[in-house]
Amino acid sequence: MQFQISERMTKPDFQGEFVDAILKCAASPDMISFGGGLPNPISFPIREMEDAVAKVLEKNGVQALQYSTTAGYEPLRAYIAKRYARIGVEATADEIIITNGSQQALDMFAAVMLNPKDPILLERPSYLAALQTFHLYDPTVHTVELTEQGVNCEELADILQNVKPVFFYAIPNFQNPTGLTYTVETREKAASLLKKSNTLLIEDNPYGELRFRGEGGYSFAHYLGEQCCMMGTFSKTVSPGMRIGWICCKNKALRDKLMAFKQVMDLHTNIFCQMVLAQYLADNDLDEHMEKIKNLYQHQAEVMMAAMDKYLPAGTSYTKPEGGMFIWATMPDGVKAVDVGNAAIKKGLLVVAGDPFYEKDRGVRTMRLNYSNSTEAQIDAGMKILGEAIREMMK
Amino acid sequence: MQFQISERMTKPDFQGEFVDAILKCAASPDMISFGGGLPNPISFPIREMEDAVAKVLEKNGVQALQYSTTAGYEPLRAYIAKRYARIGVEATADEIIITNGSQQALDMFAAVMLNPKDPILLERPSYLAALQTFHLYDPTVHTVELTEQGVNCEELADILQNVKPVFFYAIPNFQNPTGLTYTVETREKAASLLKKSNTLLIEDNPYGELRFRGEGGYSFAHYLGEQCCMMGTFSKTVSPGMRIGWICCKNKALRDKLMAFKQVMDLHTNIFCQMVLAQYLADNDLDEHMEKIKNLYQHQAEVMMAAMDKYLPAGTSYTKPEGGMFIWATMPDGVKAVDVGNAAIKKGLLVVAGDPFYEKDRGVRTMRLNYSNSTEAQIDAGMKILGEAIREMMK
Repeated sequence: MQFQISERMTKPDFQGEFVDAILKCAASPDMISFGGGLPNPISFPIREMEDAVAKVLEKNGVQALQYSTTAGYEPLRAYIAKRYARIGVEATADEIIITNGSQQALDMFAAVMLNPKDPILLERPSYLAALQTFHLYDPTVHTVELTEQGVNCEELADILQNVKPVFFYAIPNFQNPTGLTYTVETREKAASLLKKSNTLLIEDNPYGELRFRGEGGYSFAHYLGEQCCMMGTFSKTVSPGMRIGWICCKNKALRDKLMAFKQVMDLHTNIFCQMVLAQYLADNDLDEHMEKIKNLYQHQAEVMMAAMDKYLPAGTSYTKPEGGMFIWATMPDGVKAVDVGNAAIKKGLLVVAGDPFYEKDRGVRTMRLNYSNSTEAQIDAGMKILGEAIREMMK
Repeated sequence: MQFQISERMTKPDFQGEFVDAILKCAASPDMISFGGGLPNPISFPIREMEDAVAKVLEKNGVQALQYSTTAGYEPLRAYIAKRYARIGVEATADEIIITNGSQQALDMFAAVMLNPKDPILLERPSYLAALQTFHLYDPTVHTVELTEQGVNCEELADILQNVKPVFFYAIPNFQNPTGLTYTVETREKAASLLKKSNTLLIEDNPYGELRFRGEGGYSFAHYLGEQCCMMGTFSKTVSPGMRIGWICCKNKALRDKLMAFKQVMDLHTNIFCQMVLAQYLADNDLDEHMEKIKNLYQHQAEVMMAAMDKYLPAGTSYTKPEGGMFIWATMPDGVKAVDVGNAAIKKGLLVVAGDPFYEKDRGVRTMRLNYSNSTEAQIDAGMKILGEAIREMMK
């Protein structure tokens, strides 16, 4: 039989296959993957998690297994709120909504704010799953150039004034896919432009805690107050498998609607993992844990850059990350990243070509490389493959 | 500041406040609640869950904390598939998609199948959160009468032929809110009608395992094959807090789209709880566990019916359940269930008036009463309050 499939799921700009390939690859042990944004499993606090579970089930087993409320577990929300002081924001537990990973937050904002054809704004390039999610709501997608200093403020000023986007979705720290971070100057300038508009800034920050070099800036919420909603996740710091992210929304009217939508979608995020995570955070020092992760990722980034210098042909360039999980590489003139990716996957290496991160551009030369979830040997072997694949495409 | 809220979230038929009140009440210890569909916490296998977590973290800690694939944990899907033999269906792990509670499945079907204004069909009355979710996609909602024998087949035949709904969402076992179950005859007749149409039957079955009297029928998938998608959940059998439900979809084209949508929504359901649950199910006999729950709920249903006979005024009638969690009560002539509910909540009892379970009818006399999550003393005290509240409205 053939059943009706909705238009939103048959549009060509729904690029489902990219993420699926990444997730499948994550489960395949033979493949070397520079593809996903997977944390290194040697960083997982398994032993500590076991202690946390035992405590939760002994003290509050019934609460952990029963239905709960939509906003999420209060002690976890309080922990998240308090930690915002580090990036210049005062927040309260009431302003936090726990989500099924920060991915769900993208859907919540789109569903709650967008009518068909409404203008929205993203960085160019931007997170591919954000593009996918927003597209389900049939918006008019505008993009603003991302430079080494952050968003291009002239272009931003023009778009805010002429297009008046409902929201601007931005990842100011170690952006996905580019790894780029906004400078303090860019933050201040962009914030002052946004203040003159009615555009909500949705600040996604999955990688902000992963800085291994240099100094970070404030959240946009520091400058914009309730005109900035923040998204966060424990996926890159503690565990992605638990699927626990959050929204910090200071505007009550918007927050109430986000909550009402979340409640209809799935009632609430699994309370069992929320309580286990809160217990883990109460009993352990997240900063200590993050130190280990950051040292690990810094080392891996250095190993990868060394391997790139060793194996990649002249004409290939790349960003030098100060944190996060990604290097953004540009292929030599005339070489399409998609072709390199297809050649590499046949040799046992997964990389993600830049194409799905752009709203329109196809056949681009850019490519995202993840260094967090590979051994040194894998990085070396994988980069050798990548070098071969690029050379093949240069012929 | 005031930000744009989408039309889908400002329509009056988005009845968010009902479920929210139920969830809040679930968290408030002073209130007697006949409102939610909450399992009795004395049925939660806390000790066994602790063993399961320890095993999972020791054997597969990394897998439990890392990203996973969208379909869900294979051993859990295999367990679910195998269990379908009991209701006359052969299913495989490949046909199962794990969801964040079965609630998420409602959104998945709507998003993947519906364009604006498309006709869909639900029972009258039906599950309120299904109505809410579907309304977000702006469909044309049709309803078909639910009788003591199940769906009204004459009305169904007429609607299938003339309206041609994209799907028919039905809860054939201990329906929410009425507690009614389709007879075998009704199943066979409705199935033969559906076979002549191209309407997909979405069979939701959260309560089917909770039969404490009589014999149940086959799933509609037994008759309809891939024309029936089944939804299920562990919320009523093991733990709602873990938010683990599923879809069984035998049609590959539809299943691929459901999976693609789920992947964009939240990548995957939390793998930690999926693995813990699978371990629990491998080490424990779910049927033995269900025996305990069913004995408990049968007893509580009897206590509630006795209290209704004792306290409720003449003119009140109610369904006598053979399973599930609900009694469907009808107020005396001229008494609106909403008014009774408002009077009761002031006296410390939460009940859910029938109104939000109907697409159009308001001011109805019907009311849903949950008996699974109250002590005998609470049932007695609550029913006394309800009797008083009804009498007040009869004055």
